[in-house]
Amino acid sequence: MGISSRIDAAMAAAIRSGQGAQAPARLAAALGYAVTPGGARIRPTILMSVALACGDDRPALSDAAAAALELIHCASLVHDDLPCFDDADMRRGKPAVHRAFSQPLAVLAGDSLIVKAFEVLARAAGHDPARAVALIDVLAVRTGMPYGICAGQGWESESQIDLSAYHQAKTGALFIAATQMGAIAAGQDGAEWEELGARIGEAFQVADDLRDALCDEATLGKPAGQDDLHGRPNAVRQLGLHGALARLDDILAGAIASIPACRGEAALAQMVHAYADRLVPATARNRPTVPGE
Amino acid sequence: MGISSRIDAAMAAAIRSGQGAQAPARLAAALGYAVTPGGARIRPTILMSVALACGDDRPALSDAAAAALELIHCASLVHDDLPCFDDADMRRGKPAVHRAFSQPLAVLAGDSLIVKAFEVLARAAGHDPARAVALIDVLAVRTGMPYGICAGQGWESESQIDLSAYHQAKTGALFIAATQMGAIAAGQDGAEWEELGARIGEAFQVADDLRDALCDEATLGKPAGQDDLHGRPNAVRQLGLHGALARLDDILAGAIASIPACRGEAALAQMVHAYADRLVPATARNRPTVPGE
Repeated sequence: MGISSRIDAAMAAAIRSGQGAQAPARLAAALGYAVTPGGARIRPTILMSVALACGDDRPALSDAAAAALELIHCASLVHDDLPCFDDADMRRGKPAVHRAFSQPLAVLAGDSLIVKAFEVLARAAGHDPARAVALIDVLAVRTGMPYGICAGQGWESESQIDLSAYHQAKTGALFIAATQMGAIAAGQDGAEWEELGARIGEAFQVADDLRDALCDEATLGKPAGQDDLHGRPNAVRQLGLHGALARLDDILAGAIASIPACRGEAALAQMVHAYADRLVPATARNRPTVPGE
Repeated sequence: MGISSRIDAAMAAAIRSGQGAQAPARLAAALGYAVTPGGARIRPTILMSVALACGDDRPALSDAAAAALELIHCASLVHDDLPCFDDADMRRGKPAVHRAFSQPLAVLAGDSLIVKAFEVLARAAGHDPARAVALIDVLAVRTGMPYGICAGQGWESESQIDLSAYHQAKTGALFIAATQMGAIAAGQDGAEWEELGARIGEAFQVADDLRDALCDEATLGKPAGQDDLHGRPNAVRQLGLHGALARLDDILAGAIASIPACRGEAALAQMVHAYADRLVPATARNRPTVPGE
């Protein structure tokens, strides 16, 4: 089975386990709604790629780790879309959970998805509870306080933002979880894989800045030029288009250089390149030089 | 150290681990605010009592389990108080988290407390990751979907409520988690301890009905007579005062009878009695018979 089919199967099994005759039907429906259609599933794909590069000797644990990570990501989208945060009407081309169901069900769906992530990992422990515990630890650290995506979102309630802590927690945390969990699921030391995740997270941030500066609303699926509008730091504004593209290339070279020795090292470097091609809009790479850039 | 000191110390350590120089300060403050003052800490006290009755051979794991369970309970209070649910102004004698901080910080504090619960258990795994995994599994099942407190709250969004599933999930789930986790932390089979938790949960429900029907707002710390007002099922309305008290005694006798053989069986029966005395308002036990009851 390919990576994408494995992720889909693991996600479907996780959601099924939260449903059934004894479940309140609308909340059960909201869980399924919140995780499909899946979007790019970037984080679990990175996790699986690392697990495979490390030998993937306990595939059930890799599958569970991938699903757990994506469940946390989906939960964060559901809560971030709430009226008290982004008040988003749409997500992945359909009404956000709080619009399609209700605010109470969106809060509960997010909570249930967070809990399900840890349940999925505990259930997959099998004969290797030590690995499951290590996976749960990493996922919790990169989700909660003070280093996880909750902390990242929490920075937006501060009058003074520590930008580096903010970006690392808000965007970087789940990419670090992806590489570390992939390694741990396959029996490797997670610490060695932190840098790769952190650099992929940085690349994601710069690519996001490029898209915000260069794409129109139709391509983005959300309003463009928001960073400029809100005076937010943006790599294109700071470095110019070519500067930002050069920065992205630097980060990706660093990411590839950071890959620990493992049997699938070459395939993983390939994955990072493919990921980069996907991240950067063709319009950016192919755009003629603009004077002054 | 007594049970209550152990719980306080474990809670303080859990909250401290979510703070520090790199944390967004307001969210960090909201976490501490949400868990203090502690209220009765009923669930972790039951958990500790069961662990002690079972020998408490890994006290660090029992401490972690108690803290994890209470963190989930506190998270549920923070989210239940949100405007889209109970819209509560006050909790434990001070403004609710969403009033003292903000709605975004209340959502994030609840999320962070849920995540912290699982992190605390993973961190306490030590030389017994299998027990930690079993604890995480039980806590997840009794928190999420379809059997946990999220499901319980989810029933309130249904047009047709399955009352038994509703009460078991909303009130019973964390009491079942308490007895099962106490046993598991001490190396026993959690399944044997489900009935005790379920019966304590039922007793809690009947006692709540008694308080709602008999106490005034000042004693309750919240509006009285709410069940009558909203036409909700209430044991006093269904069975009369003496009927409800008799029902409570029945449930508690069943709870005591269900205690599995263990070295601390007698002490545990004592704990259930003490718990019952605390649950039932003296005004109920001492009230003269009212004609027609």
